[in-house]
Amino acid sequence: MVRLLGIDPGLRFTGWGLIEADGNRLAHVADGVIATDSDASVPERLKLLHDALMALLALHRPAEAAVEETYVNRNGTATLKLGYARGVALLTPALVGVPVTEYAAKTVKMAVVGTGGAEKEQVAMMVRRLLPGATLRRADAADALAVAICHAHHRSSRLVWSAAGGARTVAI
Amino acid sequence: MVRLLGIDPGLRFTGWGLIEADGNRLAHVADGVIATDSDASVPERLKLLHDALMALLALHRPAEAAVEETYVNRNGTATLKLGYARGVALLTPALVGVPVTEYAAKTVKMAVVGTGGAEKEQVAMMVRRLLPGATLRRADAADALAVAICHAHHRSSRLVWSAAGGARTVAI
Repeated sequence: MVRLLGIDPGLRFTGWGLIEADGNRLAHVADGVIATDSDASVPERLKLLHDALMALLALHRPAEAAVEETYVNRNGTATLKLGYARGVALLTPALVGVPVTEYAAKTVKMAVVGTGGAEKEQVAMMVRRLLPGATLRRADAADALAVAICHAHHRSSRLVWSAAGGARTVAI
Repeated sequence: MVRLLGIDPGLRFTGWGLIEADGNRLAHVADGVIATDSDASVPERLKLLHDALMALLALHRPAEAAVEETYVNRNGTATLKLGYARGVALLTPALVGVPVTEYAAKTVKMAVVGTGGAEKEQVAMMVRRLLPGATLRRADAADALAVAICHAHHRSSRLVWSAAGGARTVAI
């Protein structure tokens, strides 16, 4: 059984979701959203995000983390701000020795719904079905749980592949 | 006399420069470039950047830091990667209580060369003139020293304004 943290980063709202995976069996542990005050300075907002993720890592001690590679077809300034939040989401687990894997949004949708072009609502519905007990009060938390599910799926395939004598290692 | 750290962030190369400012008098302290291995994972590269900035902050103990807001007219993926590095550059000083200010590239050029449209070479030349002793082995270090000079200039104006009874505070 392994505990996994999924993160859907954003400067305003960062969704997070914790699940436990035992082979193909998944269980919901917790989820939520980290919100930062848009009146605060960017360094202050990034520090708040970092501190909140550090607290989650210390409290729940996930073995691995996964971050969604959000869509970037927006203007430069918006993409840059998204980059700040994603940078902190990728850095923070690494600082405490928790391996982080990135997944494209399409890969996450494929893993959860079965099609890379799924709508946000379909993802949330499938997350609720796969993880009874998830509250999903905000869409960002659903996306974070979805990336955790995606990671559970992919790491399980890798482990099987490795056990079968594959050349790829288990290291992510 | 106050010690200031300038940072010109990038995922591949992050320039840094330390100066000491005593009113309008500036002195060069140190400069360099933090390079990350493009074969390493993004979380590992961000951790290396973070650890290197932490080491610089611990060693040189700057009172304030300034980060250049680099130009973003590139494709989404490149902008996102720049965002990761800038996120870490904005976060790391904040984690140790060092205030961080952002300056647009145009503002930096204006402060150092006197025109917002200056070329990279003009910036480096003026940095060498303003800070005898700066080695500037790489252009990124020149840009980092330039943003430190820009910050020295702006904070000095703010201090004067504040001393004159202005409504704006010294806090950055």
